[in-house]
Amino acid sequence: MGVLKVSAKSNPNLVAGALAGVVREKGRAEVQTIGAGALNQAIKAVAIVRSFIAQEGIDLVCVPEFMQIEVDGKERTGIKLIVESR
Amino acid sequence: MGVLKVSAKSNPNLVAGALAGVVREKGRAEVQTIGAGALNQAIKAVAIVRSFIAQEGIDLVCVPEFMQIEVDGKERTGIKLIVESR
Repeated sequence: MGVLKVSAKSNPNLVAGALAGVVREKGRAEVQTIGAGALNQAIKAVAIVRSFIAQEGIDLVCVPEFMQIEVDGKERTGIKLIVESR
Repeated sequence: MGVLKVSAKSNPNLVAGALAGVVREKGRAEVQTIGAGALNQAIKAVAIVRSFIAQEGIDLVCVPEFMQIEVDGKERTGIKLIVESR
């Protein structure tokens, strides 16, 4: 599965474009976020990609899950979104 | 459809409980958020409710969409999450 890491500074339109590419190629994508700002950009990207990939007959949904990830030697809790066709 | 409004101060565990009730009763729920903090709490709630409602054989997914909403006479853009069984 293609993995995208999204930060609070990520541009939702660019993430949406990348997501569309991964979903078309691999069928699903995992979007990793740490913090509310990053999650906000990721969810915006999903809302954007949904609207344009719907024209290709793909009904994308997302499944949020907690994840543990190590950043600079510290354990952090993030949220990952599995983005896939319903 | 049952509508829940979530703020940055909402407790994700309590929202998850409310979501479970609405999904069981009506089959789906709409969660409305304005701002990254509110969206963060809403997505955490979806991750939580998914894990305990899965035991009932319900595979919940969420579909994010932009929404326009009027708050104190001002037009704001928020995100709503449609939460429903896959």
